[in-house]
Amino acid sequence: MARARRKLRILVVHGPNLNLLGVRQPTVYGTTTLAEIDRELAKRAAAHGATVWSYQSNVEGELVTRIQQARTTADAILINAAAYTHTSVAIRDALDAVALPAIEVHLSHLARREDFRQISLVGPACIGQVSGFGASSYYLALEAAIAHLEKEDQR
Amino acid sequence: MARARRKLRILVVHGPNLNLLGVRQPTVYGTTTLAEIDRELAKRAAAHGATVWSYQSNVEGELVTRIQQARTTADAILINAAAYTHTSVAIRDALDAVALPAIEVHLSHLARREDFRQISLVGPACIGQVSGFGASSYYLALEAAIAHLEKEDQR
Amino acid sequence: MARARRKLRILVVHGPNLNLLGVRQPTVYGTTTLAEIDRELAKRAAAHGATVWSYQSNVEGELVTRIQQARTTADAILINAAAYTHTSVAIRDALDAVALPAIEVHLSHLARREDFRQISLVGPACIGQVSGFGASSYYLALEAAIAHLEKEDQR
Amino acid sequence: MARARRKLRILVVHGPNLNLLGVRQPTVYGTTTLAEIDRELAKRAAAHGATVWSYQSNVEGELVTRIQQARTTADAILINAAAYTHTSVAIRDALDAVALPAIEVHLSHLARREDFRQISLVGPACIGQVSGFGASSYYLALEAAIAHLEKEDQR
Amino acid sequence: MARARRKLRILVVHGPNLNLLGVRQPTVYGTTTLAEIDRELAKRAAAHGATVWSYQSNVEGELVTRIQQARTTADAILINAAAYTHTSVAIRDALDAVALPAIEVHLSHLARREDFRQISLVGPACIGQVSGFGASSYYLALEAAIAHLEKEDQR
Amino acid sequence: MARARRKLRILVVHGPNLNLLGVRQPTVYGTTTLAEIDRELAKRAAAHGATVWSYQSNVEGELVTRIQQARTTADAILINAAAYTHTSVAIRDALDAVALPAIEVHLSHLARREDFRQISLVGPACIGQVSGFGASSYYLALEAAIAHLEKEDQR
Amino acid sequence: MARARRKLRILVVHGPNLNLLGVRQPTVYGTTTLAEIDRELAKRAAAHGATVWSYQSNVEGELVTRIQQARTTADAILINAAAYTHTSVAIRDALDAVALPAIEVHLSHLARREDFRQISLVGPACIGQVSGFGASSYYLALEAAIAHLEKEDQR
Amino acid sequence: MARARRKLRILVVHGPNLNLLGVRQPTVYGTTTLAEIDRELAKRAAAHGATVWSYQSNVEGELVTRIQQARTTADAILINAAAYTHTSVAIRDALDAVALPAIEVHLSHLARREDFRQISLVGPACIGQVSGFGASSYYLALEAAIAHLEKEDQR
Amino acid sequence: MARARRKLRILVVHGPNLNLLGVRQPTVYGTTTLAEIDRELAKRAAAHGATVWSYQSNVEGELVTRIQQARTTADAILINAAAYTHTSVAIRDALDAVALPAIEVHLSHLARREDFRQISLVGPACIGQVSGFGASSYYLALEAAIAHLEKEDQR
Amino acid sequence: MARARRKLRILVVHGPNLNLLGVRQPTVYGTTTLAEIDRELAKRAAAHGATVWSYQSNVEGELVTRIQQARTTADAILINAAAYTHTSVAIRDALDAVALPAIEVHLSHLARREDFRQISLVGPACIGQVSGFGASSYYLALEAAIAHLEKEDQR
Amino acid sequence: MARARRKLRILVVHGPNLNLLGVRQPTVYGTTTLAEIDRELAKRAAAHGATVWSYQSNVEGELVTRIQQARTTADAILINAAAYTHTSVAIRDALDAVALPAIEVHLSHLARREDFRQISLVGPACIGQVSGFGASSYYLALEAAIAHLEKEDQR
Amino acid sequence: MARARRKLRILVVHGPNLNLLGVRQPTVYGTTTLAEIDRELAKRAAAHGATVWSYQSNVEGELVTRIQQARTTADAILINAAAYTHTSVAIRDALDAVALPAIEVHLSHLARREDFRQISLVGPACIGQVSGFGASSYYLALEAAIAHLEKEDQR
Repeated sequence: MARARRKLRILVVHGPNLNLLGVRQPTVYGTTTLAEIDRELAKRAAAHGATVWSYQSNVEGELVTRIQQARTTADAILINAAAYTHTSVAIRDALDAVALPAIEVHLSHLARREDFRQISLVGPACIGQVSGFGASSYYLALEAAIAHLEKEDQR
Repeated sequence: MARARRKLRILVVHGPNLNLLGVRQPTVYGTTTLAEIDRELAKRAAAHGATVWSYQSNVEGELVTRIQQARTTADAILINAAAYTHTSVAIRDALDAVALPAIEVHLSHLARREDFRQISLVGPACIGQVSGFGASSYYLALEAAIAHLEKEDQR
Repeated sequence: MARARRKLRILVVHGPNLNLLGVRQPTVYGTTTLAEIDRELAKRAAAHGATVWSYQSNVEGELVTRIQQARTTADAILINAAAYTHTSVAIRDALDAVALPAIEVHLSHLARREDFRQISLVGPACIGQVSGFGASSYYLALEAAIAHLEKEDQR
Repeated sequence: MARARRKLRILVVHGPNLNLLGVRQPTVYGTTTLAEIDRELAKRAAAHGATVWSYQSNVEGELVTRIQQARTTADAILINAAAYTHTSVAIRDALDAVALPAIEVHLSHLARREDFRQISLVGPACIGQVSGFGASSYYLALEAAIAHLEKEDQR
Repeated sequence: MARARRKLRILVVHGPNLNLLGVRQPTVYGTTTLAEIDRELAKRAAAHGATVWSYQSNVEGELVTRIQQARTTADAILINAAAYTHTSVAIRDALDAVALPAIEVHLSHLARREDFRQISLVGPACIGQVSGFGASSYYLALEAAIAHLEKEDQR
Repeated sequence: MARARRKLRILVVHGPNLNLLGVRQPTVYGTTTLAEIDRELAKRAAAHGATVWSYQSNVEGELVTRIQQARTTADAILINAAAYTHTSVAIRDALDAVALPAIEVHLSHLARREDFRQISLVGPACIGQVSGFGASSYYLALEAAIAHLEKEDQR
Repeated sequence: MARARRKLRILVVHGPNLNLLGVRQPTVYGTTTLAEIDRELAKRAAAHGATVWSYQSNVEGELVTRIQQARTTADAILINAAAYTHTSVAIRDALDAVALPAIEVHLSHLARREDFRQISLVGPACIGQVSGFGASSYYLALEAAIAHLEKEDQR
Repeated sequence: MARARRKLRILVVHGPNLNLLGVRQPTVYGTTTLAEIDRELAKRAAAHGATVWSYQSNVEGELVTRIQQARTTADAILINAAAYTHTSVAIRDALDAVALPAIEVHLSHLARREDFRQISLVGPACIGQVSGFGASSYYLALEAAIAHLEKEDQR
Repeated sequence: MARARRKLRILVVHGPNLNLLGVRQPTVYGTTTLAEIDRELAKRAAAHGATVWSYQSNVEGELVTRIQQARTTADAILINAAAYTHTSVAIRDALDAVALPAIEVHLSHLARREDFRQISLVGPACIGQVSGFGASSYYLALEAAIAHLEKEDQR
Repeated sequence: MARARRKLRILVVHGPNLNLLGVRQPTVYGTTTLAEIDRELAKRAAAHGATVWSYQSNVEGELVTRIQQARTTADAILINAAAYTHTSVAIRDALDAVALPAIEVHLSHLARREDFRQISLVGPACIGQVSGFGASSYYLALEAAIAHLEKEDQR
Repeated sequence: MARARRKLRILVVHGPNLNLLGVRQPTVYGTTTLAEIDRELAKRAAAHGATVWSYQSNVEGELVTRIQQARTTADAILINAAAYTHTSVAIRDALDAVALPAIEVHLSHLARREDFRQISLVGPACIGQVSGFGASSYYLALEAAIAHLEKEDQR
Repeated sequence: MARARRKLRILVVHGPNLNLLGVRQPTVYGTTTLAEIDRELAKRAAAHGATVWSYQSNVEGELVTRIQQARTTADAILINAAAYTHTSVAIRDALDAVALPAIEVHLSHLARREDFRQISLVGPACIGQVSGFGASSYYLALEAAIAHLEKEDQR
């Protein structure tokens, strides 16, 4: 029999330069800002009885610290590590250390970008990936995270 | 003003060995069969007023032929090319030729598998990717496809 | 003294996605269809007292089978293996097995395309290459094949 | 105590161009035909109270399909994937999926051939290899398969 | 006709360990300190009616943040990313995001140093490079930046 | 409507060691000399109302200079850069600079030769390639050049 | 004759995620916490009449800054750069800049871990390495550092 | 007509660490010792009227010397070079020098082991390979060797 | 005390295809010709009491010869080796042989161009680089050269 | 409760050229001889109630044989494989076969030496490494070995 | 019986920058000039009844031309291609074309120099190499050439 | 003034399989045996008042030991390491340790052989190389060694 349903808590981690979203190159990345994405995620999470809170930093080590804190305060992580996706062993180690289900999110489809963006150091510490759908990548990843946690609870 | 809403048609392409789903290594891949996934996709598409039809083949060239036929009969493609993801230039060329929005689907998160599965020849012909969520990868990709097409219709 | 002149028989093999020629991306590949190319080849061959017949398939193994059949029914092969140029050891082995003079044909100049199209597995089983002249690549290759066979006959 | 001895069933899979055996380059590959090998295999298997049946195709996907069918109808597989040895992730996945003991067979010793034949994608899905002895590679592999199955039965 | 001449504003970004300049290995890097370089840059800029202000940090993410701020407050960037030149995708993305003309500065000529310093991730986001002239690399880059901006204003 | 037909002018550039043609290794390269090829090209060009003139040098920079001169005196270039095919960025830059349609010519099929001859620096500056047919490679390339120019004139 | 014996000062630098020691994956990394290691190091140093002080940060640039400060306040450095071992040119430059004897410490034996952990950017700036003995790696490195400094003093 | 049948002499060469067989890691390599394998080989050879004698050494150069001696005293060689398979040019040269038919034997299937065991320096000096069947790899190789020699005698 | 000030002599070396400057692709490279650059360099040098003279050749060996002559007739070299930057060991050896301070000049920023232009063979024989500022790259390099020589004179 | 304390036995293995220690390049490697190191190891071991005995050979296979013998006569191994560190699969296999805790010792810090010394084939068969401290590398490794064995005994 | 002894003629080809010999870096390359080497070669050749004549050029194509001329005027070639050793396919082709025995000469031992000097394009067109003995490399190569030719004459 | 002339002592080291010289593949390697080469070397050395003694072994470590012994008993080394040229770090270290002038000798020209013979680990420990002249490679190297030593004596 499944456990009594808990209130799911999901940390959303945004990496470097994502604070410029909606501002930088709007013809490429659209006009949606990060604040709007965070609000939409909160609204959608609430509809499932879950909570999300978001964190953005340009500093690799601060992202590491925040991921560590999630160990006792969150049930899953959505992470768009942006540029650090390709260079950070530290974020990967942090994700492995907290041992929570994490999902990679990318606004664009990396397979269509430069060679150095084809290498993902963070990927192997995640359970899945959603990429290429702009802001919707986050929303689909949220659904995937909630479904994943509910399935776990039912085991 | 957006065009009158059309009935969206989505082709789902399943590559080699996926016909064994639910049968082979159930402890790894789960007990859901391909037929069950196809039924669930149909049901979910119907809820959006869309239709899906599915095609599986172990033969690379038959997958190419079916993708070609989609050019005049579908609005988008969901494709889990399985083993051909990593070796087929022909499927990539077919996707480029039909010029429909295509979404890569993978049951498992490729970043956690063997080296030769890190190379994707099919990826650059797609607009996005959902991977790592088992059967749910298909369902999330379906949502992404419908959202993508509706946004296009509104332009 | 040369042998009595035989009627030359040439097989033309078209690989995957070439059935879309004249249809897909006409601004890139032109509006000439594969049927038109085949007719033009037939006409030009006839002018030399030769015959050509053409075969297209999206299935690698069917191309292999047809090349094998040429062993006793053709004197030379023109082959545009398209996407399989870069991935098919089987077609190469088939060409080596039939031991007929084969000529690689490409519509576009591969040296100007993606990295993965720079590798040719099929090339070493051919005697020469004509690439980059659109439909004319086929016609030049036909001339080269006929000249090659006539020179052989004169030995 | 060992189980009552079952009648062993062994599938022999021949890859592309092997249908030409005894015909193509007889100075290199000998004059034995594939039919002769299959008859010899049947005779030798019968001497051990086992049965073999053989399948040849030039189409990668058809080989995949036949391997899949072996899951419930065979106890072991002998496979000479020929050209697909080096390019087929799909055949490897099929062998992994059916989870039967499989043995790689090669007529020639690959270590003495071209560089691109040094890479084996199919090998890691097999339990062993016999190569370099012409048609005898098959016969030795048959013995190895029967010995392997009998040892398993005795456990 | 050129626009009324604006007062040019130039941000100078110094990467990790440059705060030790004039202190560490003076026989290699000279005795000029970073403060002296900044003063000289200010003086030279003033002579052109321009202003510069400088920023140094050892923290990659803080450099990213400062570059972002330049988007609305500067007309050009001089950047000596030091060690991060070779490892930071984040700084590159920041430079691309602010879309200002940026010039790479290096005290030493990288072509004469270790292999891992031959790879520049930051370079492709810059319009030019001056390297190998010690502190003078900054002064030449300042001239280049001013000339570049004045030419732009005249268009 | 097509422009009044102009008299086409085609430069033929022969790279290092081709002056030995017909002399060096006649069993490999045949007994036709470069002068004979040039005469044949002239004759065939005349039949189309075109003119060709040929230039051979062993000096890379002299080939560059001659290609530059073609900018105002020729309509197309046939180039067999021989050994410089694989090492000359300068010839490539010259071809790009004159911006004329150029066609690579090779006597032998490079795909069958040493590894270092698989890399072509000159290729991407050409519109097509004819290789493997001995002296006939030149004649087929001439036809291709004339056909290409006539098609351009008709646009 | 040796100089009067000075009181040795040793900085211990702990890189990202080491703050979780004793907490994360205790079955892999043991239950000893970083605080316990630091206390043990202090106790052992005191027994040699030396002092140690420790610093941990998840932020690469903060580690750089602290290493820089050691230039005038420490005689040697023990550094476990953790994830930054493999990606940080900045830490290497800082170690080179302060020109103190530094010793690499690793809890696990890197030779037994993933490929990307085989590359050490920090190593060439150190005089030696102790790895694979869990917390004892630090204690052995402390002994090595003290012995190294005492030998230097005796010169 | 075949020559009068000679008594075949076969040298079996065992490389480094194989003296531990049946002792080291019996769960992986089984409990059969090298002496047992040698006795079984002798018995099976006798059944064919042939003789085998075996030699084991951990010293690369001693294996070279013994292979050299086979030139005048043996008709074929079975060699399990173990670790030296991947590092010894000297053994390869020795095999080439004696110019006897040699067969590679491996207890395990190398395709399933570490990357550095995928490279075989010794392989190209052999006519075939049997691997993956434990002690039976030797017995199958013995059969292959005898069959090979008998076929040679019949020529 | 500094030596009596000498009149500085600077050789400017222009590599292949630069004679086309201002002519080829003016939208890319601008309309300034090489003669104009040389005049401007002469004027600017005169303002510092220095002289420059310029040399252009498409022939690698002529550039080598001219660089050699500079050994006794010049105090510094500005060199834009153009295409030979990436392929000429001979020019590098010549620069090393004359042992004069040399500065690399590039009109465009190489970091933004094709892969094969990222490799510089000439760079390690130079003391610095200015690239990306069009004709101004030369002028900045001239200033750098003069400043370098004056500093040397003051030592 | 821990087992009754046994007397620990440790084998020290010295690879090729170490017999020259104290003799070859004393300015680089110091004047301590191998005999002195062995005596010091013995003395230090005795202080812990342990015994060590040492073995040096220039012959790879003899080192293999001695490591094998340790299986029943030693509790741990210290190994400085010297040049064989980088080339010997056989020593690695021997260490894996005896399954004793082994510790890599190096006099110098390999990270500071030639490229080909960065690759360690022996490392993955060891539990840890001490390098860079001259003769003291052995003494620290001895301590690490004893501590490791005592901890094991207490389990 | 050997043919009547002919007077041997040997061409000595010196590549780029060798005209500076004895002038550039005399502490590295010695004070012997190229003229002195040529005189010494002439004297030594005369003692064997042979003649040598020498040619130096900095221009790759001129070296090609001179090598071609040797086809009918020389019996062997000594070539120090200097910088072109590593970049010239054209010189290699010229040497292959003239089909004379050629010997590579190098003043220094290339194995001890930069990485890019480890690659020799010219080497495979030569029969042997003498390197590392300064001017004596030429003299030893002369002896080798004469001995080689005399042995050929005796066949 | 030169020192009183000493009697030069030269060790000749022959690596694995060279004991078969004159026996194995005489059509490739000639019929001269190693004993004949050694006698010829002795005779030629005597003519210069020098002595040589030779040593051959198939065992890498024995070659190492013999090279070590040369430290006090020889003035120079001629070494044909044969197969160990490409795999032995130990021989290289031994040559470096004895610090005598050593000369690489090869019967054949390695540049014309397999890829794995292009890599020389032993080369950087030698002062020069003679290769490609069969037995004469040894004789030329002997002359080079004697000349080298006499020049040293004269300093």
